[in-house]
Formats: sequence, structure tokens, C-alpha cells
Amino acid sequence: MREQVFVLGGAQTSFGELWNKSLVDLIDEAVAGAIESSGILPTDIDAVVIGNMVGGELSGQGHLGALVSGGLPHHPPALRVEAACASGGVAVHTACALLESGKAENVLVIGAEKLTDAPNDLVTSAIMNAGNSDRDTVAGLTFPGIFGLIANRYMYDYGLTRDDLSSVSAAHHEAAVKNPYAQFKKSIPRDVISKSAPVADPLRLLDCSPISDGAAAIILSTNPSDVQISASQVATDHVSLADRTSMTSFLSTRTAFQNALKEAGWNRNDIDCMELHDCFSIAAILHLEDMGFAEEGQGVRFYKNNQTHANGELPINMSGGLKACGHPIGATGVKQILDCYKQLTNRAPNQVPNCRRALAHNIGGIGATCAIHLLEHA
Amino acid sequence: MREQVFVLGGAQTSFGELWNKSLVDLIDEAVAGAIESSGILPTDIDAVVIGNMVGGELSGQGHLGALVSGGLPHHPPALRVEAACASGGVAVHTACALLESGKAENVLVIGAEKLTDAPNDLVTSAIMNAGNSDRDTVAGLTFPGIFGLIANRYMYDYGLTRDDLSSVSAAHHEAAVKNPYAQFKKSIPRDVISKSAPVADPLRLLDCSPISDGAAAIILSTNPSDVQISASQVATDHVSLADRTSMTSFLSTRTAFQNALKEAGWNRNDIDCMELHDCFSIAAILHLEDMGFAEEGQGVRFYKNNQTHANGELPINMSGGLKACGHPIGATGVKQILDCYKQLTNRAPNQVPNCRRALAHNIGGIGATCAIHLLEHA
Repeated sequence: MREQVFVLGGAQTSFGELWNKSLVDLIDEAVAGAIESSGILPTDIDAVVIGNMVGGELSGQGHLGALVSGGLPHHPPALRVEAACASGGVAVHTACALLESGKAENVLVIGAEKLTDAPNDLVTSAIMNAGNSDRDTVAGLTFPGIFGLIANRYMYDYGLTRDDLSSVSAAHHEAAVKNPYAQFKKSIPRDVISKSAPVADPLRLLDCSPISDGAAAIILSTNPSDVQISASQVATDHVSLADRTSMTSFLSTRTAFQNALKEAGWNRNDIDCMELHDCFSIAAILHLEDMGFAEEGQGVRFYKNNQTHANGELPINMSGGLKACGHPIGATGVKQILDCYKQLTNRAPNQVPNCRRALAHNIGGIGATCAIHLLEHA
Repeated sequence: MREQVFVLGGAQTSFGELWNKSLVDLIDEAVAGAIESSGILPTDIDAVVIGNMVGGELSGQGHLGALVSGGLPHHPPALRVEAACASGGVAVHTACALLESGKAENVLVIGAEKLTDAPNDLVTSAIMNAGNSDRDTVAGLTFPGIFGLIANRYMYDYGLTRDDLSSVSAAHHEAAVKNPYAQFKKSIPRDVISKSAPVADPLRLLDCSPISDGAAAIILSTNPSDVQISASQVATDHVSLADRTSMTSFLSTRTAFQNALKEAGWNRNDIDCMELHDCFSIAAILHLEDMGFAEEGQGVRFYKNNQTHANGELPINMSGGLKACGHPIGATGVKQILDCYKQLTNRAPNQVPNCRRALAHNIGGIGATCAIHLLEHA
């Protein structure tokens, strides 16, 4: 990076079924909070980047960059970024480029999504736009269906048990209990998860992240603060699983993580906590293997051995992650950065002791896009 | 700009009603052409930026960045940018930031849209996502309706006549005759335009840019070529006309153009030709005034006096512009850069003699976003 990028502050709305708030209401709430928390004036914002996936499909609202910028007194340059569920992480990456290029000194980055006002079939259909319509959608696949196939293959290859799989969601739910913004502030035991309603065999309801509304916003700057972004990497892969050589490993995570470690000059063990993209329980396991925290087939061990809590060997998703904090698609990647910022400034509700280095891992679709950010206490 | 950005090459599909080509077909055609024309290898591409507005709404396809990148052998980082009809121009701006930040050496920038396969009401509804759904859409406005209001006000304020207004589309149609990629390669006299079917009084069918399919792609690079981008600016305004103080002037065009002249160190008279965002005939007139090429109320004079052709006082839309070349939303801003590149390398079908400096002007919605690029022969 040419210019060092810092996080000045940020805020999020509660995540959940927020029937009394529109997409714009959610954005406004997060933006106001981010500006207040960062100690800048609205007119200090040089550019706006918003990550959003389905504002057009479900809220009849595109052009969200200008919509946000129009609400600021000086109407700075603005744009919307979309990379499916990685829209938020890729928006952060784009903001880093604007800062590093010298085009901006302070960038307002927003992630937002409004999903719960639309009927389920419309929401499912809009989310499938993250897949390859010519290959996945026409085959009748949905995202739970795709990750069900992946989980089946993984269980066949590595002998993962149903109870092991349930340890993932159980851990994330346990963490969310302390997060005031979480959609489900409730611990759920493994056996309840294992017996929840079948969705796409072997995945059950409580293996799946929920449909959520919510927004998060942060201010990134070239002006120093306590937290710097030490790496910002995006990598891609074939959109459809049908074009890949493996169902149980995502190339984009491997590439983005390796490049991020190199950019930051870290090694894997430097990471004190992480926000991990657990769209489905099985996904969290794959990601840990793809980033080399575990051998192939061993990713579940941190969960199984109860080592992902704040004092554990590898603290994961202290926010509750996508499963329990919620997954308003475009918001997730930005909220992850906010959660890392809170950990690194010792302000997280579920604080990891002595947290100096944090990882945010955000994927789009079946991992066709992966955005990785490494943050550290400056 | 830190790193100078150059255009290595580019290509476009024909614009039109291309019923036998999908969104992905159009993208693939433009990308293959751009790579071939630029003389690079596909693996030289470090990042992909695609401008697209309604791929989700009308083609069931989001995640277009990864979709393009998945088709390249090395899957470079990729993202989609959206800013309504300025999606293409803003994609170019984002690519400049990636290049200037040092994140990339060669960026593939694509603009693409597929509109004609969907029924008209769906297309109209999807395009209205460029407005403010809480203010414009709920009021029953469509874009022809909005620009009809603007034209009415302008005629009332400045006494513009119907025949004067028709001179705009007539000039753009005349220019398109020579453009093999244009949707309408046909000159149309003023009186036919004036008598075409009413759409939104005073606008008639031939005042309105068409519904089009098409894609354009360019390769931008920090490696020198004959054409450099001397300025890349984006500016914004309130999305809804209802929030502004004037109906007949777009703040974003004023701001972006002033900032662009300053960035390039040019004055207005340095510009030898321009691609202008004539989504409606009245819009072209406003833009010329907002950029200071004419006094308020006088913007039509270049058209009225037949001074916009290749040998005229101010060559405008040698491609035919949005009206006659076509307007596949996200493609337009990228195609404008391609047209400027052709003019500056003396390869345009409708060549302006001794063209050294060119302007691309691209707006989104009712000018809530404006992207301005200034290009020159290096």
C-alpha cells in the first residue's frame, strides 16, 4: 500500500427482521453513527462507497451511492460496489484504492441490505443472482442446495459427523449472546441444531445464516488512528461450482489470504481473532482449511474442542458471525471490519484479551469472490 | 493522479436489439475484442471492473465481476460498479483508482447491459431504480416523464422551440450514419423528429435514447500508449429533482467538469471533440450550458447552427451518442472512452480532424452522478 489506511470509527444498526425500517433508513442510521463515532465532520468525507447486492431487485432502489451522497451537505463522489455477499468487503477494498491513489483522504464505506420485506421466493431468487444463472440457477439450485452438496461431499471425503457440524453454529450462537446488535442473542445446544428442520440435506435450518436487514458504516482515512488496515486483498474463482476442480476448497480464499499475509508481512499465527464468513456451518470449516489454520478435513477441530471463544486457541466470530449476528448481505463485509476495529480498540462486547491483529474474511456466492482484510493496532 | 493512466485498446459489440445474445455473450464479445486490440495477454490483466446497472433485475445475474474473472485463466480480482446510467464512467474512475494506487498495472474495464429481452414495464421499472424510489417512483414518474418536466421548464424559461429541440437528435442521427456499431445508422430530419409519437410532453419518441443491448470493454494501464487519461472525476447531487434548487442545471456536471479541467490543467477550448450524455435531447442542451460551452438558455446553438459535426465548431457525439448509437445503460460510459480513444488515434469512422483532446461526459439518473473523463494524445 502506498498510503497507509486507518479506521477512524464506525457504527452499525441492529441486524434482524426490521420491518419498520427501509433500506434508506438503515443506511442513514449507520452513516450518522459512523460520522459521530469517528469525530470527523460530514464535509470531511471525500468519497462514498456503498456495498449492496439486491437494493434494485427487492427495494426498487439502485443508485445508492448518489442517494447517500445527496444526503451529505457537499455531495462527494460516490459509487456502489457489488460482488454478491462480498459486496461489503469489496467496498472496503475499493475505498482503500481511492485512499491509496490520493483521490480521497476520508472515505465513508457503507454496507447495507434490506431483505425481509419481500416474499421468500423473491428473496431466494434475488440471492441466486450471486450464482451463475446459466449453470446454477437453471439447474434449480439455491444457495442452501449448493452448500448442501458441498457438505455432503465433505462428509463423504472426511467423515465429518452431524454433531461435529453442529458445533460450528453452536459456537457462533454462544458468542452472539453478548452482542447487542445480533439478530439471535441466544445460545443453542448442538443437539437442537442437529435436530432442526432439514433444509438441504445434510444442512438443517440452524446450519444456515438467516435472512436479515441491517447496515454498517465505517470511516477509512489516510489520517492516523489506533487501527490500521495492513492488507486488503480480493481474489476470484469460477462463479459456478460446476467449473471447478474441487467442491471442498475455495481457491479465492486461498489466494486472497496468501496475498494478504504477504502484503501485511504477517504469518498466520499473528492473528488474534477473526470474523469468518460462516454463511453455512460447512463454509466456516472449509475456510479454516483454505487459510491453513487446519489440515484438510480437520477444520472443525477448533469448534469441536471449544477453542473458538474469546479465550480460546483461535477466537472466531466474537460477533456471532453470519449465523447468529445475522447476514444482511452487503452489510456483512463492512460489519466485519467494524467488529475487528472494536476488538483492536478493546471495545468489543465479547472482547478477546490483548487483541492486536485481526482478520476479516468475506466471500461472495460460492466463494467466487473473497475479500480479506488484515487489521492491526497501530 | 499519481500514476499516469493510459488506454491500451478496446472494443465494443454492436448496440441494438440483440435478441440472440445474452448479457454474458455481450460481455464475452467485448472482452475478447479489447484484449485482442490492446496487444496484451489475458494473464496481464490485474483487475476487472464492470459497470452494469440491471443485470440482476432483468437477467437474473449479479456477481458479474467474478463471472468475467472466472473466464480468465488466472481469475484476477474483480468487482461490479453501479451508479445508474453512469455505471460505465464510474467503473472507469474506479479502475483509475486501482491503477493509481499501485494495486494494478492493467485493468480490464467493461460496461454492459442487456435490456431488450424483458417486457417494457419491467425495463421501465428497473430503470426507475436510478431515481429516488421514495420520491420519484412513488410519484409515478418515469425517466421520460422527468426529462419532460425539465424540457417544459426549460422551454418556459428560455423560449426553446420544438424545431430547435429536434436539431439535437437530428445531429446525433446524422453522425451515427458512419458508425458501424450504431443502433440507428440513419439520418432523420428535424420535422420527422418534431412529429414523432408523443412520449412525455414536450418530449417525443425521437427525443429519447432507445432501449439497447450492448457491451464495451477497454484496457487501462500504467504502461504508456498513445492515449492518456488526463482527468477522471466523479461528482454527485440529490437523486431526486424535488430536492434541488434548479430543474434546468445539473450540479454534478458543473462540479465534475470544473474539477476535471483543473486536474488536467486544460481550459474548455482545448477540447476538440466530446461524447455527451444525450439520454434525452433536452439533456444535451443542459450539459453544454453546465460545462460553460454556452450561456444559460443558449446550449442549443451549436446544434441549431449545425456546428456539431466533425468539421464544426464543437464536434459532439461523432458516434451518434446515446440517441443514435444506442444506450445499453452500463455500457455507455465505457463506450464513450473507447470512442474518444478512436478519435485520438485517428481511427474513428467519423473522424474529427487533428483531434488531440477529447471529453467523455456520462451521467446517472437525473444527473445525480456525473463522471467526466478527459483524454489526450500522449
